[in-house]
Amino acid sequence: MYREKIRVLDCTVRDGGLINDHFFTDEFVRAIYKALSQAGIDYMEMGYRNSKELFPPSDYGAWKYCDDDKIRQVIDGIESNLKLSIMVDAHRVKEQQFAPVDESPVDMIRVATYVKDIDKAIELVHRSHDLGYETTVNIMAISREIEPDLMESLDQLAVSPVDVVYVVDSFGALYCEQIEYLVKLYKEHLGPKKEVGVHCHNNQQLAYGNTIEGIIHDANYVDGSLYGIGRGPGNCCLELLVGFLKNPKLKLAPILKVIQDHMLPMREEIEWGYIIPYMITSILNEHPRVAIAYRKTPDKDKYAEFYEEMRDAVD
Amino acid sequence: MYREKIRVLDCTVRDGGLINDHFFTDEFVRAIYKALSQAGIDYMEMGYRNSKELFPPSDYGAWKYCDDDKIRQVIDGIESNLKLSIMVDAHRVKEQQFAPVDESPVDMIRVATYVKDIDKAIELVHRSHDLGYETTVNIMAISREIEPDLMESLDQLAVSPVDVVYVVDSFGALYCEQIEYLVKLYKEHLGPKKEVGVHCHNNQQLAYGNTIEGIIHDANYVDGSLYGIGRGPGNCCLELLVGFLKNPKLKLAPILKVIQDHMLPMREEIEWGYIIPYMITSILNEHPRVAIAYRKTPDKDKYAEFYEEMRDAVD
Repeated sequence: MYREKIRVLDCTVRDGGLINDHFFTDEFVRAIYKALSQAGIDYMEMGYRNSKELFPPSDYGAWKYCDDDKIRQVIDGIESNLKLSIMVDAHRVKEQQFAPVDESPVDMIRVATYVKDIDKAIELVHRSHDLGYETTVNIMAISREIEPDLMESLDQLAVSPVDVVYVVDSFGALYCEQIEYLVKLYKEHLGPKKEVGVHCHNNQQLAYGNTIEGIIHDANYVDGSLYGIGRGPGNCCLELLVGFLKNPKLKLAPILKVIQDHMLPMREEIEWGYIIPYMITSILNEHPRVAIAYRKTPDKDKYAEFYEEMRDAVD
Repeated sequence: MYREKIRVLDCTVRDGGLINDHFFTDEFVRAIYKALSQAGIDYMEMGYRNSKELFPPSDYGAWKYCDDDKIRQVIDGIESNLKLSIMVDAHRVKEQQFAPVDESPVDMIRVATYVKDIDKAIELVHRSHDLGYETTVNIMAISREIEPDLMESLDQLAVSPVDVVYVVDSFGALYCEQIEYLVKLYKEHLGPKKEVGVHCHNNQQLAYGNTIEGIIHDANYVDGSLYGIGRGPGNCCLELLVGFLKNPKLKLAPILKVIQDHMLPMREEIEWGYIIPYMITSILNEHPRVAIAYRKTPDKDKYAEFYEEMRDAVD
């Protein structure tokens, strides 16, 4: 598959940071940045710009906040065409500051939101757009939203300055037919001037397959992470995406190298991937938080019992 | 997805046996049989009926041969509606014997073949059909076949007594669009009296997604294995398939129980799943044998080097 307009975003440090409270070393983030630059990836998401009042710095690593100076320090001296993005939760904005784009290493601000917070998200889009940033809105937990509410949000976004709107399968609950349906619905409501993106989770080993499905139906912004790192089951594997996309600017070798040098050792320390309790939450269309908690108990591999408990809880 | 005609086949012991030379204990095979029976699965594949001349019994476990008496012994006393299948390689038939179906615990004979051996496969189909067995032909390595040769084989199968013909993605190289194309091609050439099946490998984490794709395009026979066990990257996970299919006769809990009790400990002993060298062979549309060999060397995790070597080898 080659389409010039496709943009690949790596969310290794941002989504992976949800597992370890964003405590990545500078060396790790720098190695990722270097590898993605060599591989010809379009965007790297450095983390969140979160409120230090809501999330005290004593409890989290630097990539929970992504201060411009911190970003500048870690990428210093590496040759790169990689653009940088940060994520902001629409419902958790407090005192965060954003410099004008030409005074910041950041190129794109991605606003994560639920449908209910869409007005807050659009306010943030205006603010970011006025400062010169590219912007996206990532509508989370889409598999649980009521469709007329979603359509109303899309119609609002259509007349906002946002560049890209993402289908986000937060619960890893969507099948390919639903991805097709949603990407088409987004395009219909957003019109030809906005791009559609897909961000999939791998609860059912469908993150990559569903991302391809999105691409087939003209989603041009796609997210992946190295070796699929991300909270719980993780994300679409960036290495698979690069294997699929035939854009000659993309190189697989640097990605494989950074996986063997950095992601494999990290996978020994922290857990992500195809793990049955996350499969169970996804087929029940539930948030993975119950599975995350279960994996911290001595019963973590009692799948049948977890399934019965979950079924009883949602019935 | 619910369609009454869909049949689910578990190939845990057969495809998993390719990793450990079919040395499964009777206790293990019995536990799988019991769990699949409780779960309402349609078929269980017990292994191969291989030639003892070509594969000496000193080197392999019982499930390389699947003698009728051995099968009877291991399932004895378990209440079940599960049908049993065995696989035979069309190009490796020598002295193997098949009793008439009413004297055998086996219900279905699946003939694995390459396009070049299709005449041998059809001969075996006739022999098995005349003895009263259900029959399938599983055309392997489909991603490497020349299409007119494949179409000719399908036309021959259309006028044979075979019941089901499988699309087999031996190299894990197919994307969803190609699965759609092949299932439609099979149906067109085989006509309405034959069923189409899909058997996918998980090199690129697409085994399950591609199996769903097959189902959407009217493949009614689908293969899975417990926790995805199978040679190299393994197969479509049976537990995912059961989560997807909404046939009320299918039960997930017994499957989750046997995974936690038997598959998790086995995964500690033998390796299968998403492992980068198998991803690399698949994106190059190569047999996984080079990756299998590489995984036995001290360099097994040097992905970037393996990729460069493979690329040089196929260029």
